[in-house]
Amino acid sequence: MSPTLQLVLDLVGTFVFALNGALTAVRTARLDIVGVVTLGMITALGGGILRDLVIGAVPPATFDDWRYLAVATAGGLIAFALPRGLDRLNLPINLLDAAGLSLFAVTGASKALDFGLGAGQAIILGAVTGVGGGTVRDVLIGRIPAVLHSGLYAIPALIGAAVTVAASRLDMYGLAAAAVAATACFAVRLLGIVFALDAPRPPQSRPSG
Amino acid sequence: MSPTLQLVLDLVGTFVFALNGALTAVRTARLDIVGVVTLGMITALGGGILRDLVIGAVPPATFDDWRYLAVATAGGLIAFALPRGLDRLNLPINLLDAAGLSLFAVTGASKALDFGLGAGQAIILGAVTGVGGGTVRDVLIGRIPAVLHSGLYAIPALIGAAVTVAASRLDMYGLAAAAVAATACFAVRLLGIVFALDAPRPPQSRPSG
Amino acid sequence: MSPTLQLVLDLVGTFVFALNGALTAVRTARLDIVGVVTLGMITALGGGILRDLVIGAVPPATFDDWRYLAVATAGGLIAFALPRGLDRLNLPINLLDAAGLSLFAVTGASKALDFGLGAGQAIILGAVTGVGGGTVRDVLIGRIPAVLHSGLYAIPALIGAAVTVAASRLDMYGLAAAAVAATACFAVRLLGIVFALDAPRPPQSRPSG
Repeated sequence: MSPTLQLVLDLVGTFVFALNGALTAVRTARLDIVGVVTLGMITALGGGILRDLVIGAVPPATFDDWRYLAVATAGGLIAFALPRGLDRLNLPINLLDAAGLSLFAVTGASKALDFGLGAGQAIILGAVTGVGGGTVRDVLIGRIPAVLHSGLYAIPALIGAAVTVAASRLDMYGLAAAAVAATACFAVRLLGIVFALDAPRPPQSRPSG
Repeated sequence: MSPTLQLVLDLVGTFVFALNGALTAVRTARLDIVGVVTLGMITALGGGILRDLVIGAVPPATFDDWRYLAVATAGGLIAFALPRGLDRLNLPINLLDAAGLSLFAVTGASKALDFGLGAGQAIILGAVTGVGGGTVRDVLIGRIPAVLHSGLYAIPALIGAAVTVAASRLDMYGLAAAAVAATACFAVRLLGIVFALDAPRPPQSRPSG
Repeated sequence: MSPTLQLVLDLVGTFVFALNGALTAVRTARLDIVGVVTLGMITALGGGILRDLVIGAVPPATFDDWRYLAVATAGGLIAFALPRGLDRLNLPINLLDAAGLSLFAVTGASKALDFGLGAGQAIILGAVTGVGGGTVRDVLIGRIPAVLHSGLYAIPALIGAAVTVAASRLDMYGLAAAAVAATACFAVRLLGIVFALDAPRPPQSRPSG
């Protein structure tokens, strides 16, 4: 993948994650401008920062690069200024958010492999890159993280990361394989949104027990 | 201690922490399979990961070794599949959990010393290794961490870690000293369970205060 | 600044943060001695630990130095023993807390610059040094962190850090510039307390929206 294309995709994903993360924060808790922008930035950058802390890539890449900070701040500020104007854009925002999840899961798993981690670890860190920021945001606004109880969010990320790792193990990782991995994640995430799917729940929480 | 014995003990402790941590999560919050397994893994591995991040041992040892990940995942999956079957095993699970706490406090303090940290730091990190994972789990399911308000959990871990550090400072650390340190932790934890002891509370929260 | 003066100021800031953080914890949640002292220590040391993890300065400086641990523990223990006696000292504690915030924002930004981080990153990490510990404490006692929704706390810290970074970029950073930066933070924080100022809120949360 050309470095410029990769950068543009990364920045778009970061922007949408910040926008969507800040919107969720605004709708859930009464926050001021510091809170909204901070939570947008954490949603966008938190997953990659967690991954980089675990693999020892400090300072974390997206935090060290001012372009990511600028784009994440912009997403948070727009969500702060126009929370109701953005309500009408729910569908495109959700689509772009799914695209961001796919991108982050693939690049996150790939970076973990580059740092010498094993297959299982890279799959987990790919998913953490995709879902970690939203998890920290949810904890900060007093919600049990959505990824732990509803919707299909971690599972598509795990699938995208697993395809990435498999391609790399077969020496086939490149632009095409990354696109396949991201598409697999995106497709499962979209099915989850369209059909309102949830991951399986433990037996005792079924009404007929 | 033979490396094999150490590994087997570590893996048993990890399995029980994952099982117990996931069961607590299942009983407290409505979660899906991703949530239950994730919280089991965080309970089992989170304390050691926090310790390793602070001492700069990255990637964290238990995360880097697939056997710990596999055993922790298995504990979480069993808790997911059989939450009610395991209710009858409360006593053995609590005993094994106390054993895991003892083991983690001793090995956590010992590893911190190996990385050159001071006595007080090693005692704190021994306790963090034992209680850190459950603390993060409680935050993620929206509970004030139990270790901060009830039962005797941090205090036995601090005692086990302190005995470890004292033995090391006296150049007496080895299998026997580790066993004494772990037994001290285990005994205090057991007294806490049997007599339902709590740590002292601040004066104003006493009814007659 | 003489190293001794810097150390004394740092230790005073750490003590007051621990005292104030533990008092907030005691007033909000029912905790035992482990919880109160732990939350005091986290309030005092947490911001600097987060900063040091991100810039790769491990073990974190304040955790590695027993004097900070001792002073933070002392602050937590005093809050545990005398929570009501300290109620009368609200004003001096708030003033010292504002001074601690100013000090931490300035030294935090300065350390980030020393580790080669950019201007924006150093400003963010200066603020994180000042507000990070209290944020983690609030999450642990089940509150949405105050810094995200009310009062002026992050904004003065960002101002103090920004003045520090500007002075450093102009090759003017030294004792005088640090004093100016800290005073700017302190003055804005004090205005916030005296006039009960809040940061701007998003449009839809205004009643006349």
